[in-house]
Amino acid sequence: MKTQVGIIGAGPAGLLVARILQLNGIDSVILERRTRAYVLERVRAGVLESGTVDTLRTYGMGERLNREGIPMRSMQLCWDRQKADISLDDGTGRHLTTYGQQKIVEDLILQREADGLPIVFEADVSRLDGIEDAPRIHYRHNGEDKVLECQFIAGCDGYHGVSRRHIPGSDEHVFLTEYPFAWLGILAEAAPLAARRGFAHSTRGLAVASARSASVGRLYLQVEPDADPNAMSDQQIWDELDIRMDDGTAAQLNRGPIIERSVARLRGYVCEKMRHGRLAIAGDAAHIVPPSGGKGLNLAVGDARIMAEAIRRLLTTNDTTLLDSYSEMCLRRIWPTVHWACSMCEALHIFPGQTSFQTRMQYQTLNHWGNTEIGQQRLRKAQLGLPYEI
Amino acid sequence: MKTQVGIIGAGPAGLLVARILQLNGIDSVILERRTRAYVLERVRAGVLESGTVDTLRTYGMGERLNREGIPMRSMQLCWDRQKADISLDDGTGRHLTTYGQQKIVEDLILQREADGLPIVFEADVSRLDGIEDAPRIHYRHNGEDKVLECQFIAGCDGYHGVSRRHIPGSDEHVFLTEYPFAWLGILAEAAPLAARRGFAHSTRGLAVASARSASVGRLYLQVEPDADPNAMSDQQIWDELDIRMDDGTAAQLNRGPIIERSVARLRGYVCEKMRHGRLAIAGDAAHIVPPSGGKGLNLAVGDARIMAEAIRRLLTTNDTTLLDSYSEMCLRRIWPTVHWACSMCEALHIFPGQTSFQTRMQYQTLNHWGNTEIGQQRLRKAQLGLPYEI
Repeated sequence: MKTQVGIIGAGPAGLLVARILQLNGIDSVILERRTRAYVLERVRAGVLESGTVDTLRTYGMGERLNREGIPMRSMQLCWDRQKADISLDDGTGRHLTTYGQQKIVEDLILQREADGLPIVFEADVSRLDGIEDAPRIHYRHNGEDKVLECQFIAGCDGYHGVSRRHIPGSDEHVFLTEYPFAWLGILAEAAPLAARRGFAHSTRGLAVASARSASVGRLYLQVEPDADPNAMSDQQIWDELDIRMDDGTAAQLNRGPIIERSVARLRGYVCEKMRHGRLAIAGDAAHIVPPSGGKGLNLAVGDARIMAEAIRRLLTTNDTTLLDSYSEMCLRRIWPTVHWACSMCEALHIFPGQTSFQTRMQYQTLNHWGNTEIGQQRLRKAQLGLPYEI
Repeated sequence: MKTQVGIIGAGPAGLLVARILQLNGIDSVILERRTRAYVLERVRAGVLESGTVDTLRTYGMGERLNREGIPMRSMQLCWDRQKADISLDDGTGRHLTTYGQQKIVEDLILQREADGLPIVFEADVSRLDGIEDAPRIHYRHNGEDKVLECQFIAGCDGYHGVSRRHIPGSDEHVFLTEYPFAWLGILAEAAPLAARRGFAHSTRGLAVASARSASVGRLYLQVEPDADPNAMSDQQIWDELDIRMDDGTAAQLNRGPIIERSVARLRGYVCEKMRHGRLAIAGDAAHIVPPSGGKGLNLAVGDARIMAEAIRRLLTTNDTTLLDSYSEMCLRRIWPTVHWACSMCEALHIFPGQTSFQTRMQYQTLNHWGNTEIGQQRLRKAQLGLPYEI
């Protein structure tokens, strides 16, 4: 099989690169390791920066988003039995939008299928070659070994994908931190309360309450790194959420059936070498942020915009200037965003062996973000996200 | 011996409390463990917030300060072979002032002596009693056991002093962090260069260059916690300073004879219970900040203002309202200041076993403070200091 751009991974990054290329008249084939059903049901992030919303609209993916996206104009922080509700209004009209990543993925897949463009599910990529001049993606599909020949490979295959290791020397440009805790994430059929959401610091560990829709809540508890997602009963989870989210008012969360549970380790990861020859990586393939900032998806969209434009210039005018600065341009958004997500992470979790002094320092950080004008500006700016250069 | 207020410690806090009381017509006796010569020569901090300068002027201690204090209107941060020079101008006219703590101590001692008021040097305080109603300070002087009877005790005797442990339950309100490094501090007869000062982050450890006067530099190197101050030769110290302060320009420091060396551990310490009955503590007796913020002396001045006013109200009108909120009022300045000093400390030092990810996070923090408008505001506000309530 042949195409102009071989895209590995049908997550938000890969699907968006494909969509932008399509609208620029460039063909692509997406190879996705998982089944169609798995990809459509995979629960991930759900908070979009306005730049992400604008990007999706620009490329014709705004219809359901405009209808179902829930504007989020403030953010709540809770610590030491107090709460701050920080306005995200910076006078530009920007705000965050709650809209599940799985909906974005669904929107992009259904659009692509409606347009009759190829996504090969259950395509297990084993290796890449020819990335200097004539890229080829070797994969297995329906029990057969196959090859996709292309002019460029977009590696959007996540943290565990094969793309990154095909960039020579990428190992030497890796920065990693593993946090000694994980998040138990749940989806619950319980209408989220406007007054009971946001990030909570508790001496028992972090808790997060957010909305996935008007009737479905997305909630998290800090747990041990190797915690069993089924170790706690539904009631134990709700009790623990209420204790940790205590803001001094004794208000409680709406409870309802827990319909999904998962445990995810928290880490920070950045690969600074994001491109070699005719291969570039984007999204989780290049960087992982702790979920505390709600930034992973938004970073992937930023990468995808730059990558698609760099590919367009390469394939239409043979101009490699943008491609040559791809890593550098992406990193200008990635590092400050990783830094913010890690700062949030470090202020909100209880670390093993944490001293009371360190807890006081966390309170001061949260007080700074929650109750001082300068701290609120900092949080607002970081949460709304960095501007795009491309 | 009898007096109205017994003050333990002839550092800036104790001397300033005595001075403010004097101008309010309240008698005091200062007991100081060290010799007069030692106290006058002890090298300590040297960066004053404008609030500290204003306080000293208000209480008649501004003459030499006005003449010899060097205005500091910007602050330099250096990391990863780059430098940011952050203006401290926030539009209020405030700035920092370089004026060695030992000069403040000398000004206050000479004034007190000129006024014929008592400072007992080499007075070794062993214990306090009667702090509920009739305070007595037991001390040894000239080989004799003596007692100072008073109506109030101001404990300004530093981190190792006896006052704090006479506050019942103070141990249970202590917050402590010990950093795994120390500072080698030097005084050098080498004219400081305006272009080569500030805080430097280097992968070899922190370096600091500051001015103590137009001809004397005060410089620091991060060293091991138990480092011998004499382990490095003068030339090794200057070489190391130049390497660590590298901002990409290959500029060098002015060199000259090193006339003083000392090694100090870095720690953060806060005792939240600062008063019981007729005993209150101030300055280092109650809290230690890492020197990275230049805040220790300024916090002591803030405590001293509140303490002197609380004592005045107690002794003149028997009003204990301010005294009852003494800890709380001091802590409103102390905790955010400790937090800032610790944030600076953690961004600028290399920690044992530090990963390259953590170094990148430090670069991002320094880039935020150095190169973004919001980060510069944060640094400016923290460096200029919190306002006084009293």
